[in-house]
Amino acid sequence: MTKGLFITFEGPEGAGKTTVLQMLAENLQANYPIVVTREPGGITIAEKIREVILNPAHTEMDPKTEALLYAASRRQHLVEKVIPALDEGKVVLCDRFVDASLVYQGYARGIGINEVLEVNRFAIENLMPDLTIYFDIRPEIGIERIQKHKGREVNRLDLEKIEFHQKVRDGYQLVSDLFPERIITVNAELPLDSVLSQVEKTVIRQLVEWKQS
Amino acid sequence: MTKGLFITFEGPEGAGKTTVLQMLAENLQANYPIVVTREPGGITIAEKIREVILNPAHTEMDPKTEALLYAASRRQHLVEKVIPALDEGKVVLCDRFVDASLVYQGYARGIGINEVLEVNRFAIENLMPDLTIYFDIRPEIGIERIQKHKGREVNRLDLEKIEFHQKVRDGYQLVSDLFPERIITVNAELPLDSVLSQVEKTVIRQLVEWKQS
Repeated sequence: MTKGLFITFEGPEGAGKTTVLQMLAENLQANYPIVVTREPGGITIAEKIREVILNPAHTEMDPKTEALLYAASRRQHLVEKVIPALDEGKVVLCDRFVDASLVYQGYARGIGINEVLEVNRFAIENLMPDLTIYFDIRPEIGIERIQKHKGREVNRLDLEKIEFHQKVRDGYQLVSDLFPERIITVNAELPLDSVLSQVEKTVIRQLVEWKQS
Repeated sequence: MTKGLFITFEGPEGAGKTTVLQMLAENLQANYPIVVTREPGGITIAEKIREVILNPAHTEMDPKTEALLYAASRRQHLVEKVIPALDEGKVVLCDRFVDASLVYQGYARGIGINEVLEVNRFAIENLMPDLTIYFDIRPEIGIERIQKHKGREVNRLDLEKIEFHQKVRDGYQLVSDLFPERIITVNAELPLDSVLSQVEKTVIRQLVEWKQS
């Protein structure tokens, strides 16, 4: 068993998870040994794999190829960065992890949640997160936020994407039901400080339990 | 079901499988629609993945990352090249396929044959080969042949590698026992023309059956 604590943050774009994660890390780092990361996390091999995934010339990439590449990148990030940190007793806060693959490749792209889970079990073995915070938001609100952030109006293309985003939201709900002992849902439509305070309360409860164990 | 026929060729370096495969293809192509390939087979995405695997700067690659990358490359090669050819009724002769991963990553690198098989089932679904020819050769003979080919003597490093090659041979024997209905072992220590004639006989038997089905 690892000595550290492994917490992941999940949700669609526009849900504010990255912002909240950063603020949370700042608030906690005086009292806890916090490490913030996200895949590929500066790991050379994982970065190279991500380049293959994101190369726009690769429009013909099969969804299962994509899922395998994400699993490979995840494996290497885990082995090189997450596991060593946990072994040192750190609290690792990771921006997206296995659930993103279950939702995006498994559900939204239609491969199947269980099939993608099997491949990821190979990649991560028993290292599922101790706690996962899922930032839940209606697709139309998330898209509006992204556009506001970019300083432009919601356009036709954004609206067409709503169907896909709705699928992602349905996927996250299914995955949350699969792992109720680990995944906590927060209402990401609330003002930022409410979301932060709710997330902080949940994380601190876990940190206290962890310190006692 | 695909209409074509999918035949793979397996074995260590120095077993002569690539040479025999080429000669076999030449002998058969007048009468059968032969396609010869090997992973990554000129498929851009698969080539890029192979570059990540083979990059000598990546010395710290985890064996499971490697297995996932091979599975990803295999998937893309299959989807873009093998399946379209089989759908057109071609006879696809592929130089190494899933069994190489079971042996090299699963057995020789110690991940476990069944674990690597699971990941590859995700990648290839039900597209296991119709026939696999395994070129069996004692490691010391295989290494001697490679050196002869390169025009130099067997050195200390080659001999140290024998232990690994013996593991590979043991692995191929285990995998052959797992799939007796599909894998045919040929004695690759015999002279080239004997090996070719034995392989040709086996493949033609399969081709005749396939034509009748």
